[in-house]
Amino acid sequence: MHEEKIALVDSQIRAVQRAISERSIENVYFVACGGSLATLYPSKYIIERETAAVNTNTYTAAEFFNDPPMRLGEKSLVILNSQSGGTAETVAAAHLCAERGAMTAAFTTAPDSAIEKAVDFIMYYYDNPADPYPAVLTIFPEVYKLTYALLDVWNHTSRLPEVNEAMLRLQSTFDEACTAYLPAARTFASRYAHEPIIYTTAAGLNSCVGYVLTNCLLMESLWMHSSPLHAGEFFHGAFEAVDDTTAVFALLGLGNTRPLEERAVKFLQRKTKKLTVLDAAALDLSAYPEWLRANTAALVLNRLAAMYCDEMSYVLGHPISSRRYMGVEKY
Amino acid sequence: MHEEKIALVDSQIRAVQRAISERSIENVYFVACGGSLATLYPSKYIIERETAAVNTNTYTAAEFFNDPPMRLGEKSLVILNSQSGGTAETVAAAHLCAERGAMTAAFTTAPDSAIEKAVDFIMYYYDNPADPYPAVLTIFPEVYKLTYALLDVWNHTSRLPEVNEAMLRLQSTFDEACTAYLPAARTFASRYAHEPIIYTTAAGLNSCVGYVLTNCLLMESLWMHSSPLHAGEFFHGAFEAVDDTTAVFALLGLGNTRPLEERAVKFLQRKTKKLTVLDAAALDLSAYPEWLRANTAALVLNRLAAMYCDEMSYVLGHPISSRRYMGVEKY
Repeated sequence: MHEEKIALVDSQIRAVQRAISERSIENVYFVACGGSLATLYPSKYIIERETAAVNTNTYTAAEFFNDPPMRLGEKSLVILNSQSGGTAETVAAAHLCAERGAMTAAFTTAPDSAIEKAVDFIMYYYDNPADPYPAVLTIFPEVYKLTYALLDVWNHTSRLPEVNEAMLRLQSTFDEACTAYLPAARTFASRYAHEPIIYTTAAGLNSCVGYVLTNCLLMESLWMHSSPLHAGEFFHGAFEAVDDTTAVFALLGLGNTRPLEERAVKFLQRKTKKLTVLDAAALDLSAYPEWLRANTAALVLNRLAAMYCDEMSYVLGHPISSRRYMGVEKY
Repeated sequence: MHEEKIALVDSQIRAVQRAISERSIENVYFVACGGSLATLYPSKYIIERETAAVNTNTYTAAEFFNDPPMRLGEKSLVILNSQSGGTAETVAAAHLCAERGAMTAAFTTAPDSAIEKAVDFIMYYYDNPADPYPAVLTIFPEVYKLTYALLDVWNHTSRLPEVNEAMLRLQSTFDEACTAYLPAARTFASRYAHEPIIYTTAAGLNSCVGYVLTNCLLMESLWMHSSPLHAGEFFHGAFEAVDDTTAVFALLGLGNTRPLEERAVKFLQRKTKKLTVLDAAALDLSAYPEWLRANTAALVLNRLAAMYCDEMSYVLGHPISSRRYMGVEKY
């Protein structure tokens, strides 16, 4: 059953790959909202650093729709993401892209939804908090697959099979990491569940993990105050707000921007005792090709951050799925 | 004296304009840190929406230096900004750009500084909180001038003289607006000086005003907790953290993204009584060409936000120039 789904997704990604290999693309725009935008961010980040063939950027869908880039047109590939399939801003953006002659491809969990009807290519992912699908079928790993499918075309490489293999191993990496970090997650949860604010810090590719942690987990799911601080920006303003009463959740990745993240951690270790650090250097990523380890580390950090917040939801007696506005009232 | 400085700056901007008119540019990268990056953001935003000739993006300097875009090269124009002239990350980024053959131009207040020595073109701006220079000599208006100087080349227009004229009028607009809004600023300051957190919301071009307000004013200068929420992203996570005890400072601009900002304000009006709204629709911008009003409004909002925070610093007895880490210790 899962094998069938994986085969379907891979064929959907190959369809996008074939289409762009037959078309001259100059710009790749990633357009979505909230967590659905954050999960596209790795693709922007990796493409920008691994090919000179295209330009790329990310946009929250409402801004893209109301004030689109002038270059949006026939040489644009627009990648969208709507978990529910009906996110109004994202669907509106998809229609605008079609009017402008751009090629569109969207991720969604909802077959035959409004977003599927609005785009040229659809890619399904699977999301069920009650009975989780294997990691390979969730959004981040699929975004990685698409990213390398596109890069293979633009860079004349053939790395996609290796990425597909690697993403299949992700579930066991997640399971091992979650087992190893469960005590730390419980300590975090019991220590910081009642903090007035918990900042997150990250840099580079991990910025999207920090954003998911702040926006989707701490704010949306736990109704706590937070802000996603970029570790490079931190020393140019935000750090002045930190004192020894300030809780911070810092991410340390394995990519080229690790020195920025380390600098923030070193400073925070001196300034606050309420510091939680998730360091990817402690993870066993030997099952992955060396060139893919830094990017894979971000996915594991993201999985662990979610577990830390699950543990916090138990301490608070506040189910992680609780919403007071989203889907509850009109706004 | 001011006339001489204005003439100097205008000649520096024309030198950049002449150089790019003789060179094929595909990418414009804006690279700086903190407030110096935020003040470049309008140029990215406007260029992206007003020309199809180039691609553009913004980067915090440390990330750009450690993990640069692969397209960085001879067809790149890199605009940098270092107020002090010596920001280590920005200077390092400028050297990298030179190695890659990119054309570089930087804003600074510090003649003959490290950044000036590292770039092809320098543009001075003037910044003295104790004895302020007229607005036309400060960073934001100069960034606008450069933006339209570049657009005139790429779009074969000639709007720069009109922009230069408009920026000369800015000081009197600021003065009038500050007089009109002083009572509101004092109310804001006395009401919210002791809040545990003050969020800001904005969208589009105004995002940089929200970022300056959060990062440079509330966090860096007043040591308060804050987060710059994008009004379009707000409804996809962050809003769940807002309840009737949450203070929010919302910006309403005049651009195409005003509907996003209005949607956030309407929601917040129902959810919290601690809402401060700065609405550019109430400003008198009749002295400006219609096509420039939305962009000019952002500058006035920025000036007013600074006054609101000045007033808060008086209430707190915390000078706006107080720093506990920046320039005080090594980090």
